Amino acid sequence: MQTLKIFKIGGNVVDNPQLLGKFLADFNRVSGDKIIVHGGGKEATRLASALDVPVTMIEGRRVTDRRTLDIVTMVYAGLVNKRVVAALQATGCNAVGLSGADGDAVRAVRRAPEPVDYGYVGDINASSVNVRLLTGLLDSGMTPVLCAITHDGDGSLLNCNADTIASSVAVALSSVRDTELIYCFEQPGVLSDINDKSSVIPLITPDDFPALKESGVISAGMIPKIKNALDAVRKGVRYVTVKSSDDILGCSGTTVRL
Amino acid sequence: MQTLKIFKIGGNVVDNPQLLGKFLADFNRVSGDKIIVHGGGKEATRLASALDVPVTMIEGRRVTDRRTLDIVTMVYAGLVNKRVVAALQATGCNAVGLSGADGDAVRAVRRAPEPVDYGYVGDINASSVNVRLLTGLLDSGMTPVLCAITHDGDGSLLNCNADTIASSVAVALSSVRDTELIYCFEQPGVLSDINDKSSVIPLITPDDFPALKESGVISAGMIPKIKNALDAVRKGVRYVTVKSSDDILGCSGTTVRL
Repeated sequence: MQTLKIFKIGGNVVDNPQLLGKFLADFNRVSGDKIIVHGGGKEATRLASALDVPVTMIEGRRVTDRRTLDIVTMVYAGLVNKRVVAALQATGCNAVGLSGADGDAVRAVRRAPEPVDYGYVGDINASSVNVRLLTGLLDSGMTPVLCAITHDGDGSLLNCNADTIASSVAVALSSVRDTELIYCFEQPGVLSDINDKSSVIPLITPDDFPALKESGVISAGMIPKIKNALDAVRKGVRYVTVKSSDDILGCSGTTVRL
Repeated sequence: MQTLKIFKIGGNVVDNPQLLGKFLADFNRVSGDKIIVHGGGKEATRLASALDVPVTMIEGRRVTDRRTLDIVTMVYAGLVNKRVVAALQATGCNAVGLSGADGDAVRAVRRAPEPVDYGYVGDINASSVNVRLLTGLLDSGMTPVLCAITHDGDGSLLNCNADTIASSVAVALSSVRDTELIYCFEQPGVLSDINDKSSVIPLITPDDFPALKESGVISAGMIPKIKNALDAVRKGVRYVTVKSSDDILGCSGTTVRL
């Protein structure tokens, strides 16, 4: 069976109709079963600003009070998810958009309020993922498009991190399928020199990582992504690729594997 | 096989957490396969007002320009749909929220701009409904929760009428299942005297309707709903019930049948 590919796309793609169109056209040409996990981009911040709801970020994570939860639910599960699904349908790809609540696709645990109270923010792991639902949809010829809104099973929606959802979904599905995780972003890969697009590090393994981190070659913002990637390959994902969203059919990028 | 029940709920339920909670708890006790179709209520109008997007209604239908389409997509497919799904999951009902774009569940045709240009508004009929998708989800033990946002298959989302989606879904599924459609609203049924809740008309048939309409017994706002209901029973739905959302387990209400 062909490798199942899970693509994570973020703000740089979903905020830019041209980049999103290019990505989705390329995505439609990727053969075999595939899944998209998307973030929400700046749309949620813009909507919060228009509604005079203050945005509080702590260490890059959005503090999610009740009004902010409504905003991210509207933007991630509504606007962005349905735009992506409708665009994929137009390319002939039978996409189905899902929050974690839909079909109990991904269940999260609300993060403890100590040491920082992030509000309606959830944490997940591979056991949170409904493997039966996702494989059932794939086997029916559908392409799941997951947003970063999940639920706790007790009626509350929760805001989660899209990178973590992508890696948890990949790990969970690696128990039944050969699985590849592709983190798409604005660079051609993990760069050793942030100002030089030709400085892509072709391979990162668990053995390389400490030295790359120590020496500062991998920048601060990239560290959680690579940690997620290493965690995924340690738990069964065949490999993780970090690459540009506008070159998913190409061979460039950074491969993370054991 | 038990009758498949399709419940349409509107603004009076989705805008009121207490009524919604009561409805969903009762809904969970309804045996057999079931589907919810929901409208969006006043939340979309409130969001439009907060964002200074003018609301234009013509004959009760929302004129849907690009910004309004974003708003109704956020509210119907995001906020309301995911709230309902998460609440149902908490009752043990395996709900899955769908716009018409998801899995190509319901495809619409954009309404012609003459004589009135409603913008991104779609029209549907029973042939627009993906019977295979919906029966597949039901057969897998899931409960579809449909919002009134659909797509045209060419990448555009469209705003549709939830009553029409409900009747089209019921008609389409009546080709493979014994089907009942339940229009839930704030009254115990179709009243012959709008000020007297005990004046429920127990039965309306195609033969009764013209006289009830002529005599003004059925009020103007109720006419399109009854027309939809009569159309549904003519096309194969066993019967349509118009009743209160807070008494779906009871026997009251108006039955529309051949």
